[in-house]
Amino acid sequence: MALAEAHLATLFNRPGHAIVDHCTYFVASDGDMMEGVSHEACSLAGHLKLGKLIGIYDDNRITIDGTTDLTFSDDTARRFESYGWHVERVADGNDLGALDAALAAARRQTDRPSLVIVRTHIAYGSPHKQDSPEAHGAPLGAEEVKLTKQRLGWPSLEPFHVPEESLEHWRRARDRGARLEAEWRKRHDAYRAAHPDLARELERRLAGRLPEAWDADLPGFAPTDAQATRAASGKVLNALAAKLPELIGGSADLAGSTHVVFKNGGDVAAGSWGARNVHFGVREHAMGAILNGLAVHGGVRPVGSTFLIFSDYMRPPIRLAALCHLPAIFVFTHDSIGLGEDGPTHQPIEQLAGLRAIPNLTVIRPADATEVVEAWRAAVQHQSGPVALVCTRQKVPVIDRARYAPANGLRLGAYVLADAPGGRPAVILMASGSEVELVLGAYETLAAAGIAARAVSMPCMEFFASQPRDYRDAVLPPSVPARLAVEAAAPQPWYRWVADHGVVLGLERFGASAPYQRIYRELGLTVEDVVRKAKELLE
Amino acid sequence: MALAEAHLATLFNRPGHAIVDHCTYFVASDGDMMEGVSHEACSLAGHLKLGKLIGIYDDNRITIDGTTDLTFSDDTARRFESYGWHVERVADGNDLGALDAALAAARRQTDRPSLVIVRTHIAYGSPHKQDSPEAHGAPLGAEEVKLTKQRLGWPSLEPFHVPEESLEHWRRARDRGARLEAEWRKRHDAYRAAHPDLARELERRLAGRLPEAWDADLPGFAPTDAQATRAASGKVLNALAAKLPELIGGSADLAGSTHVVFKNGGDVAAGSWGARNVHFGVREHAMGAILNGLAVHGGVRPVGSTFLIFSDYMRPPIRLAALCHLPAIFVFTHDSIGLGEDGPTHQPIEQLAGLRAIPNLTVIRPADATEVVEAWRAAVQHQSGPVALVCTRQKVPVIDRARYAPANGLRLGAYVLADAPGGRPAVILMASGSEVELVLGAYETLAAAGIAARAVSMPCMEFFASQPRDYRDAVLPPSVPARLAVEAAAPQPWYRWVADHGVVLGLERFGASAPYQRIYRELGLTVEDVVRKAKELLE
Repeated sequence: MALAEAHLATLFNRPGHAIVDHCTYFVASDGDMMEGVSHEACSLAGHLKLGKLIGIYDDNRITIDGTTDLTFSDDTARRFESYGWHVERVADGNDLGALDAALAAARRQTDRPSLVIVRTHIAYGSPHKQDSPEAHGAPLGAEEVKLTKQRLGWPSLEPFHVPEESLEHWRRARDRGARLEAEWRKRHDAYRAAHPDLARELERRLAGRLPEAWDADLPGFAPTDAQATRAASGKVLNALAAKLPELIGGSADLAGSTHVVFKNGGDVAAGSWGARNVHFGVREHAMGAILNGLAVHGGVRPVGSTFLIFSDYMRPPIRLAALCHLPAIFVFTHDSIGLGEDGPTHQPIEQLAGLRAIPNLTVIRPADATEVVEAWRAAVQHQSGPVALVCTRQKVPVIDRARYAPANGLRLGAYVLADAPGGRPAVILMASGSEVELVLGAYETLAAAGIAARAVSMPCMEFFASQPRDYRDAVLPPSVPARLAVEAAAPQPWYRWVADHGVVLGLERFGASAPYQRIYRELGLTVEDVVRKAKELLE
Repeated sequence: MALAEAHLATLFNRPGHAIVDHCTYFVASDGDMMEGVSHEACSLAGHLKLGKLIGIYDDNRITIDGTTDLTFSDDTARRFESYGWHVERVADGNDLGALDAALAAARRQTDRPSLVIVRTHIAYGSPHKQDSPEAHGAPLGAEEVKLTKQRLGWPSLEPFHVPEESLEHWRRARDRGARLEAEWRKRHDAYRAAHPDLARELERRLAGRLPEAWDADLPGFAPTDAQATRAASGKVLNALAAKLPELIGGSADLAGSTHVVFKNGGDVAAGSWGARNVHFGVREHAMGAILNGLAVHGGVRPVGSTFLIFSDYMRPPIRLAALCHLPAIFVFTHDSIGLGEDGPTHQPIEQLAGLRAIPNLTVIRPADATEVVEAWRAAVQHQSGPVALVCTRQKVPVIDRARYAPANGLRLGAYVLADAPGGRPAVILMASGSEVELVLGAYETLAAAGIAARAVSMPCMEFFASQPRDYRDAVLPPSVPARLAVEAAAPQPWYRWVADHGVVLGLERFGASAPYQRIYRELGLTVEDVVRKAKELLE
């Protein structure tokens, strides 16, 4: 969120018009300080010198299983200093004057983020539970609440009693908020008068509205343009980037490989926050979390990328994006054994199944460069949740759309690419991504042998599952039980579509290191394998 | 691995007999220093004062996308000092004397781990690629290899030429290794003579052999013992622990909740490395990695635990355990919406599907306390890969095994719990874990209405999938198309088993916060829902 602020401030503020100008505060617990993502995110925040980011560390030294002594002895101040942060300390979390002074000092530090380490006491005032793990995971209980109120000199034992003095204090926040809002509106009016175009653009971006003709100039690809879908993705991204300045992001140290590079977009760095290429470093978890922060802040549309295998490192923020309906876009490349020599540590097997199982996450695995165009179009339009675009490392043919169905069928999740004569197939072959080439090849071989096959491209199961039953039955007629699905990945997601008598040609083992064509051959994923399985099915 | 060494040294060494005595070295790159797991693991290693752990940081300041300046400006020495590590520096990685001296100094520091920060140059000696990102992700190429050899004064341009002097130097390692091994064997002989029982036990543990009658005294549970499967798991674990001292481990700050507590096992801490309860802290990723290190070292059988939702934080080490055939045991509790009030952030939906998709990982979700016994028995016996035991937070009934089939069917992955008269069901109801209660309830309701149903408990899909076709067809006869699967999770894994005309009662949305019985009701997972769906299927 602090990065979004710095980015938008650089782009939209003008002399005398600080229209984007706020601090970002976070509160962190002892547990947060132990989690790895705190290292990734705070290291990067220090590197980027995000001076308006201020953390309050609720240092109560209690976790669920006991005191932090059990497992944690970091010198957290020293640790954050190693990241280039400014550190303040408050010895007593109930000393509001000291807390206020520390936060003011933090705000004065504009050249680096600040951490305010506040020594606190969990269940403060509770005679038997203060500073105890029991206060972490369970309520105090009626009796202990009573004793705590008595100890703190609370004026009433009645539940939820709020003293008049407290209420008045809190109610002042209303006036203060109203005043601040009125001030900002005045500032905004002045900004709109002085810079009407900028104001209109900022408003558009904050509202998440797409500009007119945003997708008018997307590239087209011909059958002679065989290329990796990651390469096509880079081209489409840059065509979109020209129309959608809100697209910013980058990669966890794999930009050159994922092709998520905004050409002439500049590199985000301390003092260059208005650039578009974010170098997240080898920090996938933080990348996911930062994409969420950018999306929550608004005014930008975040894109992050890494190899599909490393999506495992960022499942928690992917899930959070889905749960919070955040429109982050993930580009996951090197999506199968097709990456070749890097071998089984780098070859995704279970990742597609794992991602497709997340509610409200849309996973699109385009078959060729033309489907990549449609995939990006769909991703940009899909604003109610995150989208994962899954791309190949290896070159794949561009499907001849004069001969086969157009790629805009992608919006329906699955579509008939090539059909049997009269639309009456004996067998249905379906696939996603690079394996669509295999089912199209098998379709042609079967057709030449007089076998009525249908080839279906299924780039997005979520889109397909959300179509009306009529459409789904038109693509996969219940009357055709002979169905074969092909994907170089764990077969789990396909059983739903092949049904009872169908077969999934997938992978229930880890991959191997070799030139990718050889891995495909050895693991039984070739046109010949598809043809043989299809014939077996028909027998 | 350093923890395993410290643990076994404490248990097995005797005065004059340091039979377990080695340093553990790691090499880390700039990328490793950015990844969050480096924080989690090194923070804990510092806390535990693992003095025989020595890291070599290959500080070449180059990553794939550029120099580390792009994204990384940590003061890594200061950071590791904040964890309580000793830090050495070597200014030139080619200065072998300096490197040797630094490593010797690190070994002398026995009261805390050491990091040796070595400034190196990637592609050292290459005239055009030294200190460049191009040298990170791609080979130098034939011409640059030639130029590099010339620059370094290499005696030959022939590929793979090894100068005699180098070969001799390397071959000395053979003699040194042989001498060290002979010394250790002598030490081992003396140890065996002085402490034959200990020597035999160490040998057994290093070989991974189970002792006789290891599972003779496992607890039994009666229908009156309704309890959460996590609670039953804690009891079984402690019964096993008495016979299997190699079981060690704990939790990522949720031991009280996951019931992975070795009673009277003591807490692992600096100087108390022989204890059995490891407090991993709020560090799931490191927990997974440490379990792998313990397993790779051998002599211990590692157990780790957290809530099922947090398995997302440790997918990379779970996958690595599966890929490396490591016999780690994960206990994942709070396994569904059944955890209730903590709400959707804590309620797993897609985690079961995601874990089941990992090759060579065995996922067992027992239905009741009795299946928990069998689940643990199977987990301990399964040594060719990791096992995840998935348990409830909420209380579940203990199935009356006098009335229904015995729980040892768990070893087959799925088994018929209750059958239709004559073994001729019209409809098959299947489930895992807490939802077995629902299908058993529905079975009884349908039976009372004269509808021939079969109830199948399917605690482990991996075991079931590996059974011969005969057995699978006996449990799920192809002649019975009316099949209903129930699991409070993403339905993806079940389509394989319900087949064409079947239905999966699962969850394709995130959960909700409420008392768990209400969530089950509102999301359509009750006995009545199962009965209704079963009847619909039969119509």
